Amino acid sequence: MTDQNKTSEKPWGGRFSEPTDAFVERFTASVGFDQRLYHHDIRGSIAHATMLAEVGVLTAGERDQILEGLEAVRADIESGAFQWSVSLEDVHMNIEARLTDRIGITGKKLHTGRSRNDQVATDIRLYLRDEIDAIAEELTRLRSGLLTLAEREADTIMPGFTHLQTAQPVTFGHHLLAWAEMLERDAERLQDCRKRVNVMPLGAAALAGTTYPIDRTITAKLLGFDRPSENSLDSVSDRDFAIEFCSFAALLMTHLSRFSEELVLWTSAQFDFIDLPDRFCTGSSIMPQKKNPDVPELVRGKTGRVNGHLISLLTLMKSQPLAYNKDNQEDKEPLFDTVDTVKGCLRAYADMVPAITPRADNMREAARRGFSTATDLADYLVKKGVAFRDAHEIVGKAVAFGVAEKKDLSEMTLDELRQFSDTIGADVFDVLTLEGSVQARNHLGGTAPEQVRSAVVRARKRLG
Amino acid sequence: MTDQNKTSEKPWGGRFSEPTDAFVERFTASVGFDQRLYHHDIRGSIAHATMLAEVGVLTAGERDQILEGLEAVRADIESGAFQWSVSLEDVHMNIEARLTDRIGITGKKLHTGRSRNDQVATDIRLYLRDEIDAIAEELTRLRSGLLTLAEREADTIMPGFTHLQTAQPVTFGHHLLAWAEMLERDAERLQDCRKRVNVMPLGAAALAGTTYPIDRTITAKLLGFDRPSENSLDSVSDRDFAIEFCSFAALLMTHLSRFSEELVLWTSAQFDFIDLPDRFCTGSSIMPQKKNPDVPELVRGKTGRVNGHLISLLTLMKSQPLAYNKDNQEDKEPLFDTVDTVKGCLRAYADMVPAITPRADNMREAARRGFSTATDLADYLVKKGVAFRDAHEIVGKAVAFGVAEKKDLSEMTLDELRQFSDTIGADVFDVLTLEGSVQARNHLGGTAPEQVRSAVVRARKRLG
Amino acid sequence: MTDQNKTSEKPWGGRFSEPTDAFVERFTASVGFDQRLYHHDIRGSIAHATMLAEVGVLTAGERDQILEGLEAVRADIESGAFQWSVSLEDVHMNIEARLTDRIGITGKKLHTGRSRNDQVATDIRLYLRDEIDAIAEELTRLRSGLLTLAEREADTIMPGFTHLQTAQPVTFGHHLLAWAEMLERDAERLQDCRKRVNVMPLGAAALAGTTYPIDRTITAKLLGFDRPSENSLDSVSDRDFAIEFCSFAALLMTHLSRFSEELVLWTSAQFDFIDLPDRFCTGSSIMPQKKNPDVPELVRGKTGRVNGHLISLLTLMKSQPLAYNKDNQEDKEPLFDTVDTVKGCLRAYADMVPAITPRADNMREAARRGFSTATDLADYLVKKGVAFRDAHEIVGKAVAFGVAEKKDLSEMTLDELRQFSDTIGADVFDVLTLEGSVQARNHLGGTAPEQVRSAVVRARKRLG
Amino acid sequence: MTDQNKTSEKPWGGRFSEPTDAFVERFTASVGFDQRLYHHDIRGSIAHATMLAEVGVLTAGERDQILEGLEAVRADIESGAFQWSVSLEDVHMNIEARLTDRIGITGKKLHTGRSRNDQVATDIRLYLRDEIDAIAEELTRLRSGLLTLAEREADTIMPGFTHLQTAQPVTFGHHLLAWAEMLERDAERLQDCRKRVNVMPLGAAALAGTTYPIDRTITAKLLGFDRPSENSLDSVSDRDFAIEFCSFAALLMTHLSRFSEELVLWTSAQFDFIDLPDRFCTGSSIMPQKKNPDVPELVRGKTGRVNGHLISLLTLMKSQPLAYNKDNQEDKEPLFDTVDTVKGCLRAYADMVPAITPRADNMREAARRGFSTATDLADYLVKKGVAFRDAHEIVGKAVAFGVAEKKDLSEMTLDELRQFSDTIGADVFDVLTLEGSVQARNHLGGTAPEQVRSAVVRARKRLG
Repeated sequence: MTDQNKTSEKPWGGRFSEPTDAFVERFTASVGFDQRLYHHDIRGSIAHATMLAEVGVLTAGERDQILEGLEAVRADIESGAFQWSVSLEDVHMNIEARLTDRIGITGKKLHTGRSRNDQVATDIRLYLRDEIDAIAEELTRLRSGLLTLAEREADTIMPGFTHLQTAQPVTFGHHLLAWAEMLERDAERLQDCRKRVNVMPLGAAALAGTTYPIDRTITAKLLGFDRPSENSLDSVSDRDFAIEFCSFAALLMTHLSRFSEELVLWTSAQFDFIDLPDRFCTGSSIMPQKKNPDVPELVRGKTGRVNGHLISLLTLMKSQPLAYNKDNQEDKEPLFDTVDTVKGCLRAYADMVPAITPRADNMREAARRGFSTATDLADYLVKKGVAFRDAHEIVGKAVAFGVAEKKDLSEMTLDELRQFSDTIGADVFDVLTLEGSVQARNHLGGTAPEQVRSAVVRARKRLG
Repeated sequence: MTDQNKTSEKPWGGRFSEPTDAFVERFTASVGFDQRLYHHDIRGSIAHATMLAEVGVLTAGERDQILEGLEAVRADIESGAFQWSVSLEDVHMNIEARLTDRIGITGKKLHTGRSRNDQVATDIRLYLRDEIDAIAEELTRLRSGLLTLAEREADTIMPGFTHLQTAQPVTFGHHLLAWAEMLERDAERLQDCRKRVNVMPLGAAALAGTTYPIDRTITAKLLGFDRPSENSLDSVSDRDFAIEFCSFAALLMTHLSRFSEELVLWTSAQFDFIDLPDRFCTGSSIMPQKKNPDVPELVRGKTGRVNGHLISLLTLMKSQPLAYNKDNQEDKEPLFDTVDTVKGCLRAYADMVPAITPRADNMREAARRGFSTATDLADYLVKKGVAFRDAHEIVGKAVAFGVAEKKDLSEMTLDELRQFSDTIGADVFDVLTLEGSVQARNHLGGTAPEQVRSAVVRARKRLG
Repeated sequence: MTDQNKTSEKPWGGRFSEPTDAFVERFTASVGFDQRLYHHDIRGSIAHATMLAEVGVLTAGERDQILEGLEAVRADIESGAFQWSVSLEDVHMNIEARLTDRIGITGKKLHTGRSRNDQVATDIRLYLRDEIDAIAEELTRLRSGLLTLAEREADTIMPGFTHLQTAQPVTFGHHLLAWAEMLERDAERLQDCRKRVNVMPLGAAALAGTTYPIDRTITAKLLGFDRPSENSLDSVSDRDFAIEFCSFAALLMTHLSRFSEELVLWTSAQFDFIDLPDRFCTGSSIMPQKKNPDVPELVRGKTGRVNGHLISLLTLMKSQPLAYNKDNQEDKEPLFDTVDTVKGCLRAYADMVPAITPRADNMREAARRGFSTATDLADYLVKKGVAFRDAHEIVGKAVAFGVAEKKDLSEMTLDELRQFSDTIGADVFDVLTLEGSVQARNHLGGTAPEQVRSAVVRARKRLG
Repeated sequence: MTDQNKTSEKPWGGRFSEPTDAFVERFTASVGFDQRLYHHDIRGSIAHATMLAEVGVLTAGERDQILEGLEAVRADIESGAFQWSVSLEDVHMNIEARLTDRIGITGKKLHTGRSRNDQVATDIRLYLRDEIDAIAEELTRLRSGLLTLAEREADTIMPGFTHLQTAQPVTFGHHLLAWAEMLERDAERLQDCRKRVNVMPLGAAALAGTTYPIDRTITAKLLGFDRPSENSLDSVSDRDFAIEFCSFAALLMTHLSRFSEELVLWTSAQFDFIDLPDRFCTGSSIMPQKKNPDVPELVRGKTGRVNGHLISLLTLMKSQPLAYNKDNQEDKEPLFDTVDTVKGCLRAYADMVPAITPRADNMREAARRGFSTATDLADYLVKKGVAFRDAHEIVGKAVAFGVAEKKDLSEMTLDELRQFSDTIGADVFDVLTLEGSVQARNHLGGTAPEQVRSAVVRARKRLG
């Protein structure tokens, strides 16, 4: 990048009596980060030139010259030959200047009937639409991996927790499906967001539209937009789509952070519920015994980053009067980093999830301890006619006995159990087993293996 | 509210060897704010009891007793006779305790096959669904008011700004439609959010489902939910719907803050573009001449509040392992306050917008100054064959001349204009008038009065 | 609270041609939440009246009448007899109106030389200063409790974790001191914040100062402020002190959330490192065996709330032009709730910490497993002349052997150990014991019991 | 940067059975952004090696070899010859690996008695301390520029606004001092933050301290730290200093955003209060007449970025158990970008402020209109014995008359004024002039030119 101050290059230099301050030039330039949009900028320009020719503003020859020129610029950029210039401020002026260098004055005609204000809004939407599609694919891959694992582990028993205290036994497959549900909502939200991204601002020009006889439906069609936008002032100033995308991303990261928290807990020596393959972990330079769950920890940490970007954009847009203000240039970095973060985290998880190995024995043992079938005993009593409040109290006493004797409910003898209520019969042991407990929760959404398997079938159908 | 520590009332007292600390009891109780949910709690209980009777867990007689009892409790609450108790922790236990006081042990059967975890999740969703519908109505009222005003002001000319510098003339109607567009996206997002709110967690019980033969499709139908939720662990821990609602609200408030900023600017002595009726303003206790735009200022300020609540909820859910944790109790106050804030602001704006009176002369005068038709002159030259870069420079010089002579472009004589380019002819004055300028932007989304009017027609159709 | 619209009561009604809209009146009133400031409002008024008398603006008789009247109003408020009126907007107008009701026209003279703009800024600072002092006390109590516990547990060994993987043995006392360090920084920040809170805005009047011959140093002294503020425009619009307080609070809550996370982990069946007394826990209405760590969970959840308030205030102030704007009214609720939250959480923790009971056997057993002395073995080898990289590898192999044989390093025989390096001698067992490991980290800041004890002594001295 | 997966290079490879996944390696590496710390990493290592030699862990020869090697590595980095490797994860391992390449096995001894956990914590603190000092300098330059301008403009009259409505006349110098006050508080907060940054974590090792006989006071002295930290667990996990710095930065940016908002307003055609030199503005590629206040707009926009980073870090640390977790790696990018943003914005403002040119005539004219001396008239009446409430009403009527007649109060004849109150005498015109009004607010903090000048003197003294 060049640091020089070539004011003569500025497209608006005429009215000004002194060149831009050299530091200010660097401070206000966006080309350092918006060059990432080059592909979509060129794509938008091709469509714009094509439309201008269709409505007669450009001749077919001019259009062809421009299209050829743009392809050459693209090739330059992709080969690394392109010299980005800070004094040309942004990706748009850099590309246009190079185009004009190549094809002469016709290059300048490309900007007819548009402005950088609608151009950049179009570029970001094209960019974000592509990234949304890439993210949707990774989401599908991750959800699919979860469903496969959930099906395989539909019968694996683990403790279900509330307040991180053992509550009731659940199946590992059922637990995995909880994550799949969260991600399904994320996928829906992403598509809802895409609808609002896929609207074309091009044609709004600086803020009011243009006096050239443009046809925005042609350009919209060429670029795959659902429709042109309805209002030019709104079009150049609207950044809702970026904020909505970051809202989606913040919720997705919240889900991945919860997922990560559990993976970190489960790989601790205290839980030891799963094993993560070495390739997703790192060691310690000082403690030879360590194997750290780096990927989940890092993903958990990246949640903050995305929440921050969301606040960044909301704060940015707060109280901005219409239409475009320079503040809006600050929309890009938070959006770009959110896209990169989400894609990276999803990719890491989609790769890692199929490699999670449950330690079924440890899970089962943890469920067995901790009186996880206490609710089942209470339900058993209620079904035998005991009032719920009384049943709760009977079980409470049995648990207190178990704590003292270090025996789970299922390890007590019938006599031991009957000292708390003679309503208890030999059939109690069916409900006190872990299998009995999970199988009994056999309704839509319940943890019974049968329900887990049919939930997987339904989820797969929705996944398409 | 009573401060006493009646441990014996606790539904879980049995296992515990000492009563809850009195301060801890107050600190952890939610009844101070969740009593707002009483209506939806009772509604949910009625549906639950009805379902339990249909599947045979309750007898018809028990169900009737419960329903009657619940209606009596509701009447007590609405008459103000109900005594809320902090030691009963929350709205659910308060209502259930009162029900049992009234109808005896049958009251306790109501809780069969559910838990407070799925109960509270159901209550909030019922509550939020109602509030979403109320908010949707206010949004419609505000959008409708904007469309009416926009249609009326389709020909009123004002300066369009970028960077708060006069850019090009637009119509006031067109500007109003920019706001209507923002609010239309908000209305769409609200309905997208509603889809995900309207799913029933009831039946998830504590976290794993229940051993009772419940039929969740019956309850879902009775409560108007689209469907029962798919996974019990997710159901009791999911707060996505609250976060998504706050994301919607943060964007809506961002729009209202932008709208407000403009109203504040426009009522300043410097702009003086509109008049707000006295009933939406206040005065000063010390400066007799003041008339302050309090409503827009306050609405602008309330944006921070809603952004804060969004961060509050995202932070709350970050890294929470499944399933329910006590942290989740903190979801309510931010959600409630967001609902109240959004409803209040929309109501104030829906009332105020129809009463906005433009000062058309001031708007027009501001547009006339500031060389707002400079782009039109450049376009005129380009259409006559001048290269865009040259045209830009010619106009730049004419503007510099105008600044020196304190004359707008349209005030110069033909001779004065021709000193910068002899391409300029007498027809230039058509494009230099404000009317000529706005009428020339006559394409979908442009500021031409004709476009504004047809945009209003389309928007009204979408508003339904 | 009355809902009526008594425009005639308004102190600024004269210039207005229509009364405030009834909904707008409620929407813009602050008395619902700012009545909390009554005590500080009256205190400020007393000082103001006293100063006005000293400079001759009021007579001694008028001053006495006002002071007596204000005390009577305070008594009314505290007895519950005071009727707050929404149409009087805020706490200031409510109190002044009542004062005038009581003492007649002299009451109106109280407002001489001030405005509600500087009055409210003064009230909040007085309020916040008091609350800071109360919070500082609770912080001291909590830190003191931690130091006592740390001293008692200076020899209790537990595993130290990084990445939630067992890393090296530490003492429980040392771990507790980590929390004490965090809280000490919080206490410092709180005092730094207090310096900037304790500056008096009174005398700035509406925005520019007043034409009355006020003496601000008198008022500042009467109110215990360090000095009057330097600039009137800044004084009425500055809310830095509230933001800085919320920044302090967000960091404090971050610390309490980390503390809470560990308490939740440690009370889980998987860790079982500590016991929390029943009075800080609650049970489950459905699962009789549960004992949930509600207080730590709730405190962890409340972190979001305070982060949200911080964002709320930062967003509020963003881009506000000088001087006072109505937006500023939104400063109070986030500040008040932050104060209440912080005080409540600190109180709960200060009460709870002394009651934490470590399960020393479980801690020790967890440290013993997990090869926590692997680093000690590597250090041992290095001190015998083995290169660090080689030592790391030798220990890695010994750990792998231990994993296979289910033996910790300290459980291996000398022969077993020597198969990895014949540098190992019988003295190795001194460094492989947990006690040997912790005692060896005997430098300032290290985990050795001796260091823990002297750190407690130093911390107590700083605590004062 | 190389993409290859050289597991053999890993300092912890031994215990692992498969290499790190190539994508995971890139995903978890920090060298892409933490290489910025190379200078401080080397500085820390030099001090560490020096201390190790002093306590006898290294020989003088080893120390010299290491110091020489580190200087050579630094030279490589600064010349651009250094090849950063992603598979070496971070700046620390990259530098250590190169050192060992250069000087052989002695290079490995540098890591004795430390860990990357305390090393990175030390690096960031050294880095941030330097940046704080650089920022403090820019702050001083900006404040100094404001004081110079304020002194020059101590008599320049402009309207003071509340609610963006003309309130009372103030001087431009007084207004500038409001900004200086905000920045002075920022400078204080920065120094308060620096105290807590300047504490040395080195010696905490991985989390528990080290078994080597290190002397932390030596290292602290060599590195210019005030003292070594007190607790090793806290030292490796504490990120308070980064959060506190971002809190400082968020408030500073809030001030700059308010400042910016006013500059944007004041350069609008509607206000036209100041002129910004061309070198701080840009033009439009489409609208030849535009001169946009880009620097203030961009600075205003960057507020969001810093608020976002603050939330990022608060969210990152929420609920992290002790001690170091991989999440912590996410602390750097938000901190680095906050530093860069703050430095850039301060530099731009420190350059720009001295070049602000007030348009004193426009300011004065705006103050003259808008009845800005209405309060003075009311005060005049009160001083003549009229009750404040009556005075307020009299002035209200005079204003209404002025609005109708398009006359400011000072433009009315004595007879016109006396129709509202015959208390008004010829001396009224002294208080109705703008000069009279500002001069009358002649107390500490008031807007009188004399007060402005003495406030500048005091502020300069504090600036030192």
